[in-house]
Amino acid sequence: MNMQQVEAGAGRRVQVPLGERAYEIVIEPGALRNAGALIARRLPKARVAIITDATVAGFHLGSLHAALDETGIGHETITLPAGEKTKSFAHLIDVVDAVLAARLERGDAIVALGGGVIGDLAGFAAGIVRRGMHFIQVPTSLLAQVDSSVGGKTGINSPHGKNLVGVFHQPSLVIADTAVLDTLSPREFRAGYAEVAKYGLIDKPDFFAWLEKNWQRVFDGGPERVEAIAVSCEAKAEVVVADERESGRRALLNLGHTFGHALEAATEYDGSRLVHGEGVAIGMVLAHEFSNRMNLASADDAARVAAHLRQVGLPTRLSDIPGGLPPAERLLDLMGQDKKVVRGRLTFILTRGIGQSFIADDVPPAEVHAFLKEKLA
Amino acid sequence: MNMQQVEAGAGRRVQVPLGERAYEIVIEPGALRNAGALIARRLPKARVAIITDATVAGFHLGSLHAALDETGIGHETITLPAGEKTKSFAHLIDVVDAVLAARLERGDAIVALGGGVIGDLAGFAAGIVRRGMHFIQVPTSLLAQVDSSVGGKTGINSPHGKNLVGVFHQPSLVIADTAVLDTLSPREFRAGYAEVAKYGLIDKPDFFAWLEKNWQRVFDGGPERVEAIAVSCEAKAEVVVADERESGRRALLNLGHTFGHALEAATEYDGSRLVHGEGVAIGMVLAHEFSNRMNLASADDAARVAAHLRQVGLPTRLSDIPGGLPPAERLLDLMGQDKKVVRGRLTFILTRGIGQSFIADDVPPAEVHAFLKEKLA
Repeated sequence: MNMQQVEAGAGRRVQVPLGERAYEIVIEPGALRNAGALIARRLPKARVAIITDATVAGFHLGSLHAALDETGIGHETITLPAGEKTKSFAHLIDVVDAVLAARLERGDAIVALGGGVIGDLAGFAAGIVRRGMHFIQVPTSLLAQVDSSVGGKTGINSPHGKNLVGVFHQPSLVIADTAVLDTLSPREFRAGYAEVAKYGLIDKPDFFAWLEKNWQRVFDGGPERVEAIAVSCEAKAEVVVADERESGRRALLNLGHTFGHALEAATEYDGSRLVHGEGVAIGMVLAHEFSNRMNLASADDAARVAAHLRQVGLPTRLSDIPGGLPPAERLLDLMGQDKKVVRGRLTFILTRGIGQSFIADDVPPAEVHAFLKEKLA
Repeated sequence: MNMQQVEAGAGRRVQVPLGERAYEIVIEPGALRNAGALIARRLPKARVAIITDATVAGFHLGSLHAALDETGIGHETITLPAGEKTKSFAHLIDVVDAVLAARLERGDAIVALGGGVIGDLAGFAAGIVRRGMHFIQVPTSLLAQVDSSVGGKTGINSPHGKNLVGVFHQPSLVIADTAVLDTLSPREFRAGYAEVAKYGLIDKPDFFAWLEKNWQRVFDGGPERVEAIAVSCEAKAEVVVADERESGRRALLNLGHTFGHALEAATEYDGSRLVHGEGVAIGMVLAHEFSNRMNLASADDAARVAAHLRQVGLPTRLSDIPGGLPPAERLLDLMGQDKKVVRGRLTFILTRGIGQSFIADDVPPAEVHAFLKEKLA
C-alpha cells in the first residue's frame, strides 16, 4: 500500500490470486476504450453478451461497442431497466433466455456493463447458463468497482430478502474505468465511498486516516481516486482469497451490513429514501456505537467515524432516512432474515476501534433490540 | 471391483473423494429406514426441506418422515408434479420460495427424494439458495442412483434445450436404497440400466461382460443389484474426481448422450415416446455404429451392444421410437445446441470397441448428417 506515492495518470492492476480462478482487475481512467484488447487477450475468440441497464447504456454502451468492434469481438446486447427491482427471477430468466438464444457457448462470456445490480444479475446468469460461462465485469459505479466486482458473489433478491438467491462465480477479468465515475450523481458516488471507508474501518486505520485527508481528491478524480479504488480492491481480494466461500473471515466485509440490510429492507429498497451505501454508512456508525455500548470501543472512535462520513455528505443516523422506520422489533426481525444468521444467533461485525473490527457470533438479540429502541427514539 | 464375490444382503459404501466437497454414497436395501441416523451423523442439528414428486411421495415419503422423526430432525416437504416438465424455472422458483419461507439457513439441507428430475431441480435450488446450502440425495430411480446422484450436476431445462441452466453443486450425502427400485415400472428400471451398461462400454469391458451374464439378477434385486450400482457409482466417481468441472475426461460420460439428447428434444421430452435412458440406449448403439462407419470399431461390437440392450428390453434403433422423427438436418441442429459443443465443432464420444471409448472433438457434421439420413431411411 503506497498511498503517499501517487503518480498522475498511472493505472493500477490488482491480482486476485484464486488458483485456477485467478483474475486481474484493471483500474485506469479510460480503460473502457481498451476493453476489446483486454478481453481478447484474456479470452481469445470469445463472443460476448453485454448486459447493461438503460441509464448506463446511454452513457457508455457506445464506447464499449466501439472497443469490441475494433478488435473484432462479436457481441449481443441485453438492456434492462435500471434499479434494484431488476435483480429478480423475471429478469434473470430474460437474460438466460437471450444468452441461449444467441447460442453463446461455454467458452464465450457475459459482460456486465453497469453497477452492482447489473453485475450481480449478469454474474448469476453467467454462473448458471450451461453451468458456468466466462464472466467479465465492467463496473460503472464506485460501489461496484470497490465491492461487488471483487469476490465472485452474484445473485438476485427474493421477496424474503436481499441477495438470498445466487452463486459464487468469479469473473475472468474486471475492467474498472475510473473516469466513467464522473457520470455518477454525487449521491451515488458518496454511496460507493462508504464501502471505500469500510476497508479502512475493518483493519486499515492508516487508510482511514489517509481518506480523512484526501477524500476530496478521491471525489474529484485523478490519481487519488485510482489509489483509493486499488487499495479497496486489494483489501477485499485479500479477504476473499483467505475465505472464498464466506465460512469465516470474509464476514468482516459485512461491517455495517447487518444493520444496513435491515434498513434497506425496512425502506423497501426504495432508492429515493436509502441506497445500499447509505445503509452501510449508517450501519457502520451504528456498529461503532453499539460496540461502544458493549464497552468494546471508545465513544470518540464512533464520533470520528460519524464525523468523516457526515463530512463527505453521507447519512449517519436513523433520523437521516426520510420517512418513518418500523419499530425495533421489526428491524431485528429483518436482521434475522439476513444470510449471515447461524442457527438463530446474530452474527455481527463489531469493533474495538478504528481498523480493529472482529466477528462476534453470539450477540444477544435483546441488547440489539434495546440499542435500536434508543436510536429510534 | 470384486464382481464375482457378491455377498447376500451386504450394503456398499462408495466414497467420492472431492477434497473439502468429499461425500459418501450409501448403497443398501432398506437404507431409507436409516436416513435420519445417516443425515444426523453427517449434519448434526440440520433441519431439512424435502423436495419430492407426487408419485414418489405416495411410495416413500412416509418412510422418510418416520426416519427423520425418529432422530428428531425437523422437516418441511414440498411436493411437485412428477415428470420432466417440472425441471423449469417456474418450479425452481416455487422451491426456492418455500425453502426461504421455512427460514432454512446455510447449515440446513435440502433433501431430494425422487428420480433425476427431482434431484436435478432440488440440487439446483440447494446450489443457489443463500448461495449454497447442504444437499442430500435420496435417489429413488435406478437412473438417479447410478448417474445423477454422482457428480454434482444440477439444473433445469430451457426452451432452448435440456439441462442448459444449472450449477455444479456436490451433495453432502447420497442414500441409495436399492429396495425402493422395486416400485419402479419395468420400463423405468430398464431406462436406468442403460446408464449401468454405459460404464462397461466406456472403459470396463469386464463389467459389460458380467452384465451380459448377470443382468437378470440385477433386475430381480439382491446382491447383484447392489454390486452393479456400486460399480457404476465408483466408475462415475472416478471420472468426476479426475475432472469435476467437465473440461476434459468427464465428457466420456456422455457416451450415447449427444445422439440421445437430440432424440429427446426431437420427441419433445414426451416420456410416453422416449425417456432419457432409452435415448441413451439408442444413442450408444448409434455411437458404436457410427464408430464402425468411421472405421474405428468393428461391426461385431456394435451388434453385441445392440443385442444386449435389446435383450433387456431397451430400444436400440431410431425406428423403435413411436411416432415420426424430424429429418437428419434437424437432428443435427438439435445436437448443436447441446452444451458440449465447442465453437461449432461437434464433440462426440466414439469408440474403438467395447470398453474403449474416447473423446473425438472434431467430428465432421457432414459425416454425422449422412449417417443419420441412412438410419432414418
